[in-house]
Amino acid sequence: MIAIGVDVGGTSIKGAFVNEKGIILSKFSMKVNKQERAEVEVKKLSDIINDEIKLHGYKEVKGIGLGIPGILDMDKGIVITSPNLPLWDNFDIASFMNKETGLPVLINNDANVAALGEARFGSGKDYKNVIMITLGTGVGGGIIIDNHLYDGNLHQGGELGHMVIEVNGRSCGCGRKGCFEAYASATALVKETKRMMSEHPNSLLHEVAKELGEIDARNAFIAQKKGDLVADTLVNEYVMYLSEGLINFCNIFRPEAFILSGGVANEGENLLSRVREYLKLHTYGMKRSPKVDVVLASLGYDSGKIGAATLVLDN
Amino acid sequence: MIAIGVDVGGTSIKGAFVNEKGIILSKFSMKVNKQERAEVEVKKLSDIINDEIKLHGYKEVKGIGLGIPGILDMDKGIVITSPNLPLWDNFDIASFMNKETGLPVLINNDANVAALGEARFGSGKDYKNVIMITLGTGVGGGIIIDNHLYDGNLHQGGELGHMVIEVNGRSCGCGRKGCFEAYASATALVKETKRMMSEHPNSLLHEVAKELGEIDARNAFIAQKKGDLVADTLVNEYVMYLSEGLINFCNIFRPEAFILSGGVANEGENLLSRVREYLKLHTYGMKRSPKVDVVLASLGYDSGKIGAATLVLDN
Repeated sequence: MIAIGVDVGGTSIKGAFVNEKGIILSKFSMKVNKQERAEVEVKKLSDIINDEIKLHGYKEVKGIGLGIPGILDMDKGIVITSPNLPLWDNFDIASFMNKETGLPVLINNDANVAALGEARFGSGKDYKNVIMITLGTGVGGGIIIDNHLYDGNLHQGGELGHMVIEVNGRSCGCGRKGCFEAYASATALVKETKRMMSEHPNSLLHEVAKELGEIDARNAFIAQKKGDLVADTLVNEYVMYLSEGLINFCNIFRPEAFILSGGVANEGENLLSRVREYLKLHTYGMKRSPKVDVVLASLGYDSGKIGAATLVLDN
Repeated sequence: MIAIGVDVGGTSIKGAFVNEKGIILSKFSMKVNKQERAEVEVKKLSDIINDEIKLHGYKEVKGIGLGIPGILDMDKGIVITSPNLPLWDNFDIASFMNKETGLPVLINNDANVAALGEARFGSGKDYKNVIMITLGTGVGGGIIIDNHLYDGNLHQGGELGHMVIEVNGRSCGCGRKGCFEAYASATALVKETKRMMSEHPNSLLHEVAKELGEIDARNAFIAQKKGDLVADTLVNEYVMYLSEGLINFCNIFRPEAFILSGGVANEGENLLSRVREYLKLHTYGMKRSPKVDVVLASLGYDSGKIGAATLVLDN
């Protein structure tokens, strides 16, 4: 059996044919023209899929799964609004693609889908209950309970980045103050790095920024390794906020593992070991409770495609 | 069909025979001697149950459900430790009672069980997805997803009172700082009332305390209604913290309703209307999402007994 997994982005759409073991058999992609109507772009996508099936002679293609950023009606397969695809509002993508390809079509949020991919076929494959947290521009999350995606009643929950961890704290793009995202995203770390740099003109952070040619999530970690005390504070605070958020999810869900992905997670073991240490010290009931692992995502950019295919494989 | 629901407390054990509609047919209770071994006390309880079945001539008794405070191995039916019952550690209560009564025995956390009772047969009976929050000595929580209790992997989650909403905030009994419980419990409100009273000797809070003969969760609300500005600040802050915690659960679970119970919830509509207003203004994606109701628990002290019986009815 084969499922098609598609990762819809604001600049390109990337897809893959995936077998029931989560192995990618072949990939395809197309550029997206944001100024074009959804019908035109999704017709192109459908044509590519039809061509690919013929080209490779795929049999037993079970359906198409789509990971889409934005607000969706997942039950009906409708894109309600997707910020980066302004002409896709209220587009019934599932019915449209079904008509074009003859295949059943399922849609879900891009962060959820990536979590499902990692949980089933990536770093989470040995666990049944995991939470994936993506530390990128924002903080995205995906909750897997008993091997299945959980996204709240009517698919309206699972907004893990928008849990307040500091009432009246830092402003968040969602309109609330003190959200986890405002402390644990790569964007937040960069913002804090810049703030610390302006306050501490002698910090090694400046030198590192020159070497890197920019200020990103890496600066703090690099300068800390060089012994910079300002960077050390920056990293420790970041780890504290990230870990406090994870502990909250521990006390609510007690997953077997957290899977970290996204820009900041590229720091790897250096970040993970700090988070593990914090969790060990602070998790409620941790001494009596089963250990919660903290691991890195392993599928990289393929998690979205594989996860979208998993929607179909699971169905 | 009849199920027996038992609410185990540190000073008394209260139980009821409950039919499949959640109606209590008869009740029983016994005092608990904390200095006595679990075997002795639970033998007494089993004898009472056997006697009651004979007395009332109950047929088709399906089993016994127990709501127990503390840390439990729910799958095995063992009390690992229950702070108010020091001689119950590592007691296999399910096997013991099964031997004594011949009935299957299920156990669960007392807060979870109360939530299950309210969700199925109380204020939550028209909803499938609710979260019950008890605002008492601590903050207890119970999560109902699709009509079933959700308490995390290995029953080790669902600790809703121990979600940090203010990193490095007020100390919590669990060892962390800034837990929801340290802001939204009756204990927290009383503590803040006392703090405000000592800072504001002219506040009406003092007069109200004299009238009530004590300082409890009511003082702030009563003094606020009399126009006291200090009490107004106190109530507004309490509502803010409580609501911020509820919004976090909204963004994670998006329940259909919150059911509030416990000491502070006795304030009723005056509290609820403030919380609803706050939620309306601050919940992520609230404008596009289905409304989340906020209602009062309706079963009172029977929620634990009915909920414990529901464990059996569901099984």
